Order: sequence, then C-alpha cells, then structure tokens
Amino acid sequence: MMEPVPVPEITARVAALQEGLAREGVALAMIRQTADLYYYTGTLADGWLAVSPAVEPLLLVRRPQYRLQEAAPPWPLAFYGDLKEIPPLLAGRGFAAEGPLGLELDVMPVAFFQRFQKLFPQRASKDISPLIRRQRMIKSAYEIEQLRRAAQSLDQALAEVPSLLKPGAREMEVAANLEYRLRLLGHQGLVRIRTWNLELFYGHVLSGLSGVQAAYTDTPSGGPGFSPAFPQGAGNKKLAPGEPISIDLFGCFNGYVVDQTRMYAIKSLPPEAWNAFLAIEDLYRFFEDLARPGAMAGDIYQRLWQAVKDRGYEEDFMGQGPDRVSFLGHGLGLEADEFPLLTARFPYPLAADMVLAFEPKIFLPGIGMIGLEDTGRITPQGVEWLTITPREVRVI
Amino acid sequence: MMEPVPVPEITARVAALQEGLAREGVALAMIRQTADLYYYTGTLADGWLAVSPAVEPLLLVRRPQYRLQEAAPPWPLAFYGDLKEIPPLLAGRGFAAEGPLGLELDVMPVAFFQRFQKLFPQRASKDISPLIRRQRMIKSAYEIEQLRRAAQSLDQALAEVPSLLKPGAREMEVAANLEYRLRLLGHQGLVRIRTWNLELFYGHVLSGLSGVQAAYTDTPSGGPGFSPAFPQGAGNKKLAPGEPISIDLFGCFNGYVVDQTRMYAIKSLPPEAWNAFLAIEDLYRFFEDLARPGAMAGDIYQRLWQAVKDRGYEEDFMGQGPDRVSFLGHGLGLEADEFPLLTARFPYPLAADMVLAFEPKIFLPGIGMIGLEDTGRITPQGVEWLTITPREVRVI
Repeated sequence: MMEPVPVPEITARVAALQEGLAREGVALAMIRQTADLYYYTGTLADGWLAVSPAVEPLLLVRRPQYRLQEAAPPWPLAFYGDLKEIPPLLAGRGFAAEGPLGLELDVMPVAFFQRFQKLFPQRASKDISPLIRRQRMIKSAYEIEQLRRAAQSLDQALAEVPSLLKPGAREMEVAANLEYRLRLLGHQGLVRIRTWNLELFYGHVLSGLSGVQAAYTDTPSGGPGFSPAFPQGAGNKKLAPGEPISIDLFGCFNGYVVDQTRMYAIKSLPPEAWNAFLAIEDLYRFFEDLARPGAMAGDIYQRLWQAVKDRGYEEDFMGQGPDRVSFLGHGLGLEADEFPLLTARFPYPLAADMVLAFEPKIFLPGIGMIGLEDTGRITPQGVEWLTITPREVRVI
Repeated sequence: MMEPVPVPEITARVAALQEGLAREGVALAMIRQTADLYYYTGTLADGWLAVSPAVEPLLLVRRPQYRLQEAAPPWPLAFYGDLKEIPPLLAGRGFAAEGPLGLELDVMPVAFFQRFQKLFPQRASKDISPLIRRQRMIKSAYEIEQLRRAAQSLDQALAEVPSLLKPGAREMEVAANLEYRLRLLGHQGLVRIRTWNLELFYGHVLSGLSGVQAAYTDTPSGGPGFSPAFPQGAGNKKLAPGEPISIDLFGCFNGYVVDQTRMYAIKSLPPEAWNAFLAIEDLYRFFEDLARPGAMAGDIYQRLWQAVKDRGYEEDFMGQGPDRVSFLGHGLGLEADEFPLLTARFPYPLAADMVLAFEPKIFLPGIGMIGLEDTGRITPQGVEWLTITPREVRVI
C-alpha cells in the first residue's frame, strides 16, 4: 500500500542540486533535515545524504539500518554508529576532502553545528538552505499530483462539516472530529514546518470572536486554544447562530500539504460579514489576474493592499494593529512554510509550477474573522486551484 | 476554563534561573524556545524573556500584543516589531550592556543565531540549555499534578481499547480513534520535542511484526506508518489473533506529557511472548529497587542490562542489532525528551521529583514487540508511578 516516490523523480532532484552546488561553489552538501532528506532520497533516516557536484551521492544511515537495506533507496548506502565515522566513509567513496561544506544552517541548531563542524576542520561552512528552498518551490508533476490528492481528502473530510455544526457544540469537538476523519483519509498528522518555534497542528476551527484572536504563531488568525500551554486553534467556545465559523485545515497526502480555509455559519450572518466576504471574493479575482509567471510577489502584495484600502478594510485586514501578519500567502509542499512568500519583499518572481496558499482574511471587530484560503499552482494561463471545496459561506 | 500556571510557581522558577545564571557567570539570558518560554512565563508569545541575575525580568513580545496585554503575565511587558529594537528596550529597563549572553544553543538555528548575535556585538554567547534542562528536570508539585492529570486522561482513553481491537481492524483505525478520544480529553495534540529532527505524533499502535520495525526516530519501536514520507507509527496492517499489540501513547494535559505503553492481544499469545512479558515484569521490579535519589543512571542501566543477559534476551532488547536504542528511559514534562536520560553515561544522579518514563522492550523475531512503559516520579521511598493503567497483557 506504500507508494514510494518514483526513482527518476529523485535522481532528477539530486541532479539539479548538484548543478546548483557547482554553480555556488559548494564542494560537499550534507543534508540532514527530515523534509529535505525525504525530498532528495524518498526515504527517511537518522542519517545524511552526501551530495557533491561530481560524485555519486551517498546515503549515510545511523538508523534504521535493517529497514533501509530492505527498502533499497536510489542512492548507495553506508552505515555508521557515530558521526566521527562519516569523514572516512566519504573519503572511501571518492568525496574530496576539501572545499566548502554546505549545511542547512536555517534549521541546524548551533550546538549541533559546532560539534559537526569539528569533523571537517579544513572546510568552511556555507548555508545551502536558500538553494534547497528555491529548488523545492518549483513542483514536479508528481508533487502536484500528491498535493491534489491532499486537497481531495480535505474536501472529503469537510463534507461532514454541516452535520457537526450544531449550536452548543464546542469548537474543539468539531476540530477533533475533522482531525479524525483526515487521519483515516491518509493524513500523517504531523505537519512539517521549517521556521523555528512556529508550532502548528492540523489547523483551526474558530467561531465568532475566537476568529479575531491573534496567537503566538505567524498566522493571521490564531485562536485561543483551551490551554495556556498551547494557546492556538479551537477552544471550548460553543458554536452559536449568527457567527462566522472558519475552518482552516491542512490536508496531507504522501507528505505533501495543502492549506484551505472555508467559512460556515449557523442560520445567518450579519450584513457586515457578507460585505466582507464580497471583498474577499474581489481579492481572489485580483489575485487571479495578477499571479502569473514573472510577476513579483511585492507588486501583487501592493496591488491587493490597495484594493483592501479602496474597500475601507485597511484596519481589519490580515490581523488587527500590531498583530497583523506581513504576508498574504505562503508556499506549500513537504512543509507548510515553503517558498514563495506573498510578501512586500520576497525576492524571486513567480514561476510556473510554484504552489502557494492565498489567504486574504478580514478581522471584523465584535463579529469575527471572514476569509478564504486556497492552495493554487502558478501556470502560464493563471492560477490553477488545487483545493476544490466550493468557495462560499455555507449557511447551515 | 483556561487554567493559568500559578504566578508563585513562575516567579520561583525564574528566581532559581537567576541564581543559576549568577553561578555560571551569565549576565543576560534571552529565552525564546516555546517550551522554555512557557516554563518561565506561563504564557506563549513570538518573543523573548530577558533574565539577568539582578534585574527584574522583561517579557519582550512581537506577537500577540493585544492578547498579552489582556493576559497580564507575571513579568513586565515590552513590545517590539523588529529584533533591532530589543537592545535599546533592555537598556531602558536597567539591563547591563555587557557580559556573557546566554542562549538556548541546542535548539536555536545557526542562521538565526548569526543574525541575533549581531545585535549584541560586545557580548560572548554561551549555551544555557544545560542549565535550563537541569532545572526543568526537577518537577514542582504543580507540575506533578498536571502530569497526573495527563496520565488519568490517557487511562480514560485506553478504556475504549477492548472495543476497538477486532480482527481485521487496521492499526491506523485504532490509532485515529484513540487520538480523537485523547483530544476531547484535553490533549493539545502537538507533543513538544527538543531534539532536532526527532519527529513524534501522539504515539504508536503496532501489532505483530509492525512492533519490531525500527524507524528513523530515536525510539525503540518505530513502526511502519502508511506513507514513505512519515514512516513511523500505525500502518495499514490488520489486527490478527495471536499477535502482540502495543499501544504506546503520550497523554498530555496543560502542556505536560506522560508516556505509557500497554500490551494487548486478541484471543492468545505464543508462549515466547508470555515469557518475555515475565522478564519485563522482572525488570520493573529491579528498576523499582534501584531508582532512588542519588542513584546514577549508568549503574541502573548496567544492572538492568545484566538482568536482561541473565534471561537470555540480550539480542532482542531495546531493538535489534544496530537499530537498538541506547536508553531505557527518558525524562518527561513540557517536552517528551527531557532530562534525566536512563543511559550508560547520563552524568547527573537521580533526585527526588524527577519524572521519567521507563520503557523496557523486547523484540521477538517473527512474533513482535513485548514491553511496557510507565512514567514515574522519583521519591526518597522509591518510584511513584504516575501512569495508572493496569500493567498486564490485556487479552480480548
């Protein structure tokens, strides 16, 4: 039942990395972080993928040795027990002993780095995360297919929402129920994040004033949670008629993550909420007009913010006051915070087969959060949305 | 319904940290990691707690500003938008501008550290994680109470297990069902881990040969998972009579985590499995005799391994061959990998009010994993177990 990543997919990824390393003068990349390791090997180990521009890659595994032997990953394997064994193993496979060492310095902790660097005293270290993140932001057909399946399972889980939204039901009950359904549809549970200290679980089910509560996470709506130790997401608030209910969840399939937010209400919503929803729909139309290969994120960001101001929502958009977030969207793939970022200053132009979530959200004081989020793929013809749940306020 | 951490609890924690900083010559500690920040503030923010030996601590918050103002945490607040604002904010509150800077270097990524260090060009950086981890390994009465509640909710969820263990049911269905029940009983879902790349979700439901599969995580039993992107935990294997079924789950309440493994079987188990279970029960008795304040983890570790050898299980204990793990237990609290570690070389003696999981596990080739895990508190009279589910093989 396991669906391995096709081997040509992985060999093409590593070949592209080897080109990038050659271009940037990195003699040896040692890849360790789980999402990156999976991307370049199709497997996971407590171990490293060693990649040099002109040598066959080597997968160094501390654990699990038996399982990796059976799984036959696309790269030659070497086993080790202690990190000290790595330099001689590399030398034995033809890796040069000198030249810059590329590491994932945006995620590798300082104390670990200091120990690891001592194994390669003659090499200078270089951060290869920007290179890896730029490569990973362009998705292959295989990856887009996994994202599509993640979106389908999310849509299937959400089909149950109307039966769950009863006055008096707690946000938390709805969240737990949807998490359970997603899990049975193939969600791995854990959603990978690259940013240090950015904690996320499946997502948020928030109603009424819960929806405008900012959290300690870099997300527009945070929610209260039910414990001071994890103050985000669904809480114990009971659903009530007339309040906006937002369901912002990650779908996940074979490691790939999509992000989608949909709005619901029991019986009715106040006119201000409907007006805000019309503005959100306008922003979607603007985004669809602007998001093309070659477009700069900063230009799209400014144009959308201008549209928000024109509609009088500048005080209520993407959070309130100092708790406003500085993005309108973010890339998705094996991690929930991939490139590209839809911010004022993201430096790379949009390109075909980038996948990103667009999440315009309006925070209405005294009412709640009104917004949508979809995950889309950039194509020369425009945005192809991967998330498929109808984009409406579903009134139950 | 939120239960805040009592303020005297937090002020005592920070007073003890201030003493430790003075002892180790750290002039200013900047605490950022979520578990540490929650431990010393009772709240969570995208922000920092600044602690000096002789100045009132200051909680620096980038987000969420409105919520933190309302929540009134025990420390004075200052708000910032950019990290560059931090040094002048500290100067304005009487923090000295010189002297060693303490950071959590076991978790802080290199690239972040390099940027942050530039804000304090005149200060040398020092890793304060060992100091923090040593403090956090001794639990207060409040903390032990939260761990007890986590254990109770786990026991409540497990009460449903007999109704779930039907021949033909998939491991994954049992796991999803228990996760759902735990969530409704107050589990925050996300289990915090300190170790880089050590990914865990709620835990594992494994049957038969799934139980002896090592994973890429530093846990004795890993399991297959159902996707190559997250190859751990429950998979699609169907439960069958006569196989050992292990349910290894984290309970969680108000941020505090306990770890427990229980064994089940449908109808029967082979005699080898029953014999292994008797050995596991022996190891519990040895551990209970040995685990006292003042005992060294290394001595306990050697004595238990000797008992394992005496019983002929040395090839099958704590994993198979090179996939064996090097610990018999680990501390628990706000994180699942706290101090103390029950390893050959853990350097600090056991002390009263340490809390740790003891998890002897035997891997029987061709049969599966047989083991138990409980979370206990060290007291002068011996181990007081916090996990409460009866320690038996439950045959359904």
